[in-house]
Amino acid sequence: MVPPSESIPALTISPFERPGEAPPRPERLVGIGVAGYGYWGPNLVRNFGMTPGARMVAVSDLSPHRLASVKALYPAVKTTPVYADMLADPEIVAIAIATPVSSHYPLAMQALEAGKHVLVEKPLALNGDEAARLVAEAERRDLVLMVDHTFVYHGSVRRIRELIESGQVGKLRYFDSTRVNLGLFQRDVDVLWDLAVHDLSIMDYLIGKSPVAVAATGVAHVPGQPVNIAYLTCFFEDSLIAHINVNWLAPVKIRRTLIGGDRQRIVYDALEPSEKVKVYDSGITLGDGPAGPDGPYDRLVGYRTGDMWAPKVSLGEALSVETQHFVDCVSQNATPLTDGKVGLRVVRILEAATLSLKQGGCPVQL
Amino acid sequence: MVPPSESIPALTISPFERPGEAPPRPERLVGIGVAGYGYWGPNLVRNFGMTPGARMVAVSDLSPHRLASVKALYPAVKTTPVYADMLADPEIVAIAIATPVSSHYPLAMQALEAGKHVLVEKPLALNGDEAARLVAEAERRDLVLMVDHTFVYHGSVRRIRELIESGQVGKLRYFDSTRVNLGLFQRDVDVLWDLAVHDLSIMDYLIGKSPVAVAATGVAHVPGQPVNIAYLTCFFEDSLIAHINVNWLAPVKIRRTLIGGDRQRIVYDALEPSEKVKVYDSGITLGDGPAGPDGPYDRLVGYRTGDMWAPKVSLGEALSVETQHFVDCVSQNATPLTDGKVGLRVVRILEAATLSLKQGGCPVQL
Amino acid sequence: MVPPSESIPALTISPFERPGEAPPRPERLVGIGVAGYGYWGPNLVRNFGMTPGARMVAVSDLSPHRLASVKALYPAVKTTPVYADMLADPEIVAIAIATPVSSHYPLAMQALEAGKHVLVEKPLALNGDEAARLVAEAERRDLVLMVDHTFVYHGSVRRIRELIESGQVGKLRYFDSTRVNLGLFQRDVDVLWDLAVHDLSIMDYLIGKSPVAVAATGVAHVPGQPVNIAYLTCFFEDSLIAHINVNWLAPVKIRRTLIGGDRQRIVYDALEPSEKVKVYDSGITLGDGPAGPDGPYDRLVGYRTGDMWAPKVSLGEALSVETQHFVDCVSQNATPLTDGKVGLRVVRILEAATLSLKQGGCPVQL
Amino acid sequence: MVPPSESIPALTISPFERPGEAPPRPERLVGIGVAGYGYWGPNLVRNFGMTPGARMVAVSDLSPHRLASVKALYPAVKTTPVYADMLADPEIVAIAIATPVSSHYPLAMQALEAGKHVLVEKPLALNGDEAARLVAEAERRDLVLMVDHTFVYHGSVRRIRELIESGQVGKLRYFDSTRVNLGLFQRDVDVLWDLAVHDLSIMDYLIGKSPVAVAATGVAHVPGQPVNIAYLTCFFEDSLIAHINVNWLAPVKIRRTLIGGDRQRIVYDALEPSEKVKVYDSGITLGDGPAGPDGPYDRLVGYRTGDMWAPKVSLGEALSVETQHFVDCVSQNATPLTDGKVGLRVVRILEAATLSLKQGGCPVQL
Repeated sequence: MVPPSESIPALTISPFERPGEAPPRPERLVGIGVAGYGYWGPNLVRNFGMTPGARMVAVSDLSPHRLASVKALYPAVKTTPVYADMLADPEIVAIAIATPVSSHYPLAMQALEAGKHVLVEKPLALNGDEAARLVAEAERRDLVLMVDHTFVYHGSVRRIRELIESGQVGKLRYFDSTRVNLGLFQRDVDVLWDLAVHDLSIMDYLIGKSPVAVAATGVAHVPGQPVNIAYLTCFFEDSLIAHINVNWLAPVKIRRTLIGGDRQRIVYDALEPSEKVKVYDSGITLGDGPAGPDGPYDRLVGYRTGDMWAPKVSLGEALSVETQHFVDCVSQNATPLTDGKVGLRVVRILEAATLSLKQGGCPVQL
Repeated sequence: MVPPSESIPALTISPFERPGEAPPRPERLVGIGVAGYGYWGPNLVRNFGMTPGARMVAVSDLSPHRLASVKALYPAVKTTPVYADMLADPEIVAIAIATPVSSHYPLAMQALEAGKHVLVEKPLALNGDEAARLVAEAERRDLVLMVDHTFVYHGSVRRIRELIESGQVGKLRYFDSTRVNLGLFQRDVDVLWDLAVHDLSIMDYLIGKSPVAVAATGVAHVPGQPVNIAYLTCFFEDSLIAHINVNWLAPVKIRRTLIGGDRQRIVYDALEPSEKVKVYDSGITLGDGPAGPDGPYDRLVGYRTGDMWAPKVSLGEALSVETQHFVDCVSQNATPLTDGKVGLRVVRILEAATLSLKQGGCPVQL
Repeated sequence: MVPPSESIPALTISPFERPGEAPPRPERLVGIGVAGYGYWGPNLVRNFGMTPGARMVAVSDLSPHRLASVKALYPAVKTTPVYADMLADPEIVAIAIATPVSSHYPLAMQALEAGKHVLVEKPLALNGDEAARLVAEAERRDLVLMVDHTFVYHGSVRRIRELIESGQVGKLRYFDSTRVNLGLFQRDVDVLWDLAVHDLSIMDYLIGKSPVAVAATGVAHVPGQPVNIAYLTCFFEDSLIAHINVNWLAPVKIRRTLIGGDRQRIVYDALEPSEKVKVYDSGITLGDGPAGPDGPYDRLVGYRTGDMWAPKVSLGEALSVETQHFVDCVSQNATPLTDGKVGLRVVRILEAATLSLKQGGCPVQL
Repeated sequence: MVPPSESIPALTISPFERPGEAPPRPERLVGIGVAGYGYWGPNLVRNFGMTPGARMVAVSDLSPHRLASVKALYPAVKTTPVYADMLADPEIVAIAIATPVSSHYPLAMQALEAGKHVLVEKPLALNGDEAARLVAEAERRDLVLMVDHTFVYHGSVRRIRELIESGQVGKLRYFDSTRVNLGLFQRDVDVLWDLAVHDLSIMDYLIGKSPVAVAATGVAHVPGQPVNIAYLTCFFEDSLIAHINVNWLAPVKIRRTLIGGDRQRIVYDALEPSEKVKVYDSGITLGDGPAGPDGPYDRLVGYRTGDMWAPKVSLGEALSVETQHFVDCVSQNATPLTDGKVGLRVVRILEAATLSLKQGGCPVQL
C-alpha cells in the first residue's frame, strides 16, 4: 500500500513532467485492454499507447464502425466486438472500462473474476452495493481496482493539495464548486452522477474526509428524463461545508471552485489558460467602515487586503499521469491514489444525494 | 395604482437617462427626511438632493460626528439626533429609513402614523408579521410605502425584464445567482438577509411570481454569530427552479446571475464594466456526438451553438432612478414598483429560508 | 481561377463543418509528401491523413528519430532522410514544405521543377526575389503554389471578412494587431518574419489591398541575434492605417486585433474560448460632456453607446480547412485563396519593414 | 529638495491610506484657487476640499452656469469669472490650473508672477519653450511648480516603481503601453498630447531616464482635425525600448502596460478591479522543443514557466494623494515628484513625436 503523500512524486513520472527522463521499466510490459471506444475510450487508448511500461493489446466495442477507426489509427491493436475475448486473452493484464455507467459493474466484475486488474470510468458503479462488491472482489484477489477520477491527476488539483497539506491555507472552512455548461442530456445518469462526481472526487482528494450528511435539490426539465440541474450541500463534522452546483443547461461553461481556509483562500478555475490556481492572502480585518443597513462590507468587497499568488502548475495531460500511475500500481502491486475505496466513498455520497433530492432537500446521513 | 409595466417608462426619468429633458414638476417639492447617515444614508441624501421634485429637508442620526459631516456638505439641511423631530416637521412629507434592520419596523411605523410616506432600506423588516403590519398601515392611511430594492432600478435588470416580457427568452427554466465577496460579519442579520435579499428582489421582479417552497443550507463559522455562508433553493409551481449562493468569506467578488429560458439564456454579471447583460442563442441541438461514459456533451461544452448578444444597458446610477420613482409616486399618489407588498414577499421567503436552514435543508412551504 | 468570394463556400468542406456530408471524391487521390517533421510537420501529416481526396504517401526529414515517430504513428507512410526521394516518387502529386524558412526557396523550387504542386510554410521565402521566382515557376508549369497562411482558414477570420464584405462595418479606418508571448528566440528569422507574418496574412485577406509604405521600429536584445520586439505601421492610400505589435518576451500571450470601420468596430481575440469575434455598434456621438483639459471623453470611455454582438464562428481546426482547400485546388486546378502571389505580397511588406527597421523607423515605399 | 525615493513615504499621507492618522498640520492652511471648472476642475476642488492643510478659497471659470454649481455644492467657496481676481486674492497661496492646454502657459505664468505656487494640468504646456519658461520662472521665484501627472500618484504605479527599485525585476528591456478607448475628438490637442502624455509620465517615473530618440506614426481620420490614432516608439541609450499605442476610436477601453525586465515581467492593467499589477517569474529557458518553421515557441506560449504574483496595491484615489503632496510641498517648500522639470521632459518627447509624425515615422533625436 502506497500512502497518497508518498506516491505523489511517483505520479509525476510522465512525458509531460520530465521530458528527458526515462521512466523505470518493469520486467514485462503491462498488456492493456480497453472496453468501449466511444467518447472517452479513444483518450484511454491514445494515452496507454504512450505510457512507458504499458502495451495496448486490444479494444472491444459493439460498433464495427468504431473498431474500424481503431484499426486505422493503431493497426497493431486487436479489435473485437466480444468483451469476453479480452477476458480470455492472456496478453491482457489489465482492462480499462469506458462503457456506459450501467455496465461498469458487470464488466468490471467479470474482469476481476478473470484475474485482470481494472481501471473503471467514473462513477465506479450505479450504486454503493455494486461498488462495494467490486472493492471486496479486488481485495480478495489482490488485484488493482482503480477508478478514473481524472481531476485528481491534474497538476492544479495536486498543487492545491500540496498547499493545503503545507498548512499555509489553514483550517478548511468551505469548498464551493460550480460545474455548469451547455451539456447534453444523459440517459443513464443524472447531472449529479455525470458532473458532480468530478467535484466529489476533487473534494475527497483535497479534504481527505467524508461528509456526515448531504442535502440536494434539483429539477428534471424533461419529464421522465434525469435531473439536469442540481445543487448539493455536504455537511462535515466540524463547521466545514461543501456545495456543488451542476447544470446541463447553462449558456456558458464554468469550472470554478472556491476553497476557503482560515489563513488563505484559493480559487481554482480549470478554464484559465495558465493561472488556474490563485491563492489569496485576504482577510476580513478591515472592518473599520461606518455601521449601516448593509454594514460596511460593501466598502471592502472587491478589495483584496493582501497579495494574490498564482503558483506554477503542471499543464500536462492529467490522463497521461493517471494511466502511468495505473500501470505503475499494477507492475508494483501498489494501491492507486483513486482506488476502489475512493470510488465507493464518492458513490455513497451520490446515493445519499439522490435520496435527499427525492425528499426535496432534507438532509441524508451517511 | 400604476402597474409596473406601464410605470417602467416613467422610471426612466432621470438625469442619467435623458440629460436634456426636464422632469414633470409637481405643485410643491416633496420634502425628504433621511433617518440614519451611516453606510447607505449618504447615498440617499446625495441622490434626493439631485432629484427633481424633491427637497432634502433633514437628516437624523444618533452620531453627532455624522451629523457634522452632513452640515459640512449640505449647510441648508437640518440635522437632529432625535428621530421624532423629523416626524413633527411639517416640511417633511416623506422619510427614508437607512438604519439597522432591527429598527426598520418601529421607525417606519412611527413615520406612517405621523402621516409620512416611507422608503425603507431592504429588507423591509425583521419578519413577515412586522412587514405585513407596515403594509396594512400604509394602505389604511393611503401612504406610499416603498422598499429600497435598488437592483430593480438598475438598467441591466430592467433590460432583462424587457427581454423576458418580449417573449424572446421563452419559458423560464432556472434562475441561478451567486453573490459572494470578502464581506464583514453582520451583527443583526445573517448572510441571507444581508445578501440574498438582493437576489430575491431581482428574482421577484424578473419572474413575477413567488416560490411555493424553499430549502436552505448554510453554516455559521463564528459560534454565536449569524450564518455567513448559505445556499438557497426556491421551488416554483412548474419546473422552474431558483438557486442563490451567498458567502461573506469569498476571496473574490462575484455578482453573476444565470437565467435560463427555453429559447435563450442570459448571463447577468453586475461587475462587467460594460457588457453586464449577455444573451445567448444557444441550444442543445448538437447532440450527434458518440455515446460514452460522460456522454458527448464534453464535445460541445464551451461551444456556443448560436450568437451572443450584449444589449446596451443604461449605466446610470440605480439609486437616482429609484429616488426619482419614489418622489414621483409620492407626488402622483402612485404605487411603487417595489412597494410594501413586494418587500413583504421577499421577507416571507427569507423567513422560510431561515426555518429551512434550521432544519438542515428540509423544504419549507410558503 | 476561383475568386475568393466564390471559393469561400468550398472551403467549408471539412469534417468539422459538416460531419454528415460526404465530400466530393476526385477521380484519383492526391498523393502527398511532407518535407520536415519538426514542429509543424506533424500537424500537416495528421490533417492530410484525414483530408478526403488526399493520401499521405511519404515524409522526409533529416532526423532518423523523427522519421521513426512517423512510422510508429503511420506505418503505411514511407519515410526518407533524402528529400530527392520524394521528388522522384511518382505517387507523390503534391509536396508540403515545413522546414526552416531559409530552405523554403530551394525545396519549393525543386518540387516545382519536379512537377509537384507545392504548399509552403509561411513565410513563402526569405525575400521577395525568391518568392517571385517561385510564383513565376509555378505559373510557367501551371502548378498550384500555395502558402500556409493558416489564419486565413480560421472560422473567425473568415467570419470577419464576411462582415466587412457585407458593408455593415463601413469604410475601414484602422487594423491594429497585437501578437505577443513568451516565445523562443528564432535563429533564421526575426520576430517580424516569425509573428507579424500572421497578422500581415490576416490583413491582406481582410483589407484586400497592399500598403503604399511601411515604417518599423524594434530592438534585438541579444547582440547578433534577430530583432525580438518590433512595431510595424502600414500606410495605405487613403487614411486607413495598420499597426502590428510583436514581442517574443511578453509575460502573457496576447492575440488581439482591433478593426475599426465607420459603422462598426470589431475585436478579434483568438484566445477567447468561444466569443472570438465581437462586433460593436459603438459611436462617438455622445459628445455632450463639459469641455476640459482632457475633454469629456473620459466620461464616455468604457461605455458602449450601442449593442455588442458576438456572431457564432466555426471552431473547427483551420489546418483541416486549409489542407482540404489545397487538395481541392490541386484536383480542380483552382487558384488557392493564399496562392504564391499572396505570399509574395506579404514577403514584400516584410522586406520593406526590415529596411525601415534598419533606418530607425523611416518609412519605406512599396 | 526632497528626492523621490525619500518623498515616497510622505506621499502616502492620505485619508485613504491611513484613516486613523492625523496628518502633520502646517502653521497656516494653504489657500487654494482652482482655474477651470470643466471636466477635471470639480475633481480638484473636491480633493483640495478634503486635503488636510489646504483650504479651498476660490474657483474661476468663464461659465456662470459652472460657477453656480460650485456655489450649490460649496457655499463657502468664492467664485469669479475673472481669473485675475484669484491672482489678486491674498488668501490664495496656490493655484491649480485645469483649463484647456493652450491656456496653461499664460495662466501659469501669470500665477507665478503673482507669487502663487502652481499645479498645472497635464501636459504642462503646448511646447517645450513655454514649459521651459515656466520652469525658469518658478525657480527664479522659488515657487512650487507641479504638473498633474496623476498616474504617478496611483498606488499601482508607485508599487511597480518599488519593485523596479528593489532590483527584483532586473534590467529593464521594454515598456509597452496601450491606452485606447472610444474617446471624443479633441480640438486643441491630438491623441498623443491627450492620451500618450499619461504613458510618458508613467514611463518617466518608472524608467527614470529620457529617451535619446523617438519615432511616431499616426493618422487623422477627420481632415483638419488632430491625429486621432498614433503609435510612438522611444529609443534609449541601451537596448531598452518603449512603445505607446493610443487610439480615440477603439471599441473597447484598454489600459495595459507590459514592462519587461531580465528577471521578471510586469503587467499593469489599470482596469482590473483588484489585481492591477501582476508580476511574472517567467523565463525563456524552456527551449527544448523540436525545431521547425515557427520554432518551438508555440509549445511554450501561454505557459508561464514560473509563478505569477499580484501584490496588494493601494486603491485610494490618486488625486487625493497628489493634492496632499502638492500641499505638503508648498508648506514644506519641497520639490514635487512631478515638478516642472518632469513636465518639461514629457513635453519635449511629445514635441519630438509630433515632428517624427510629420516625417512619416523617421526618428527625431532628443
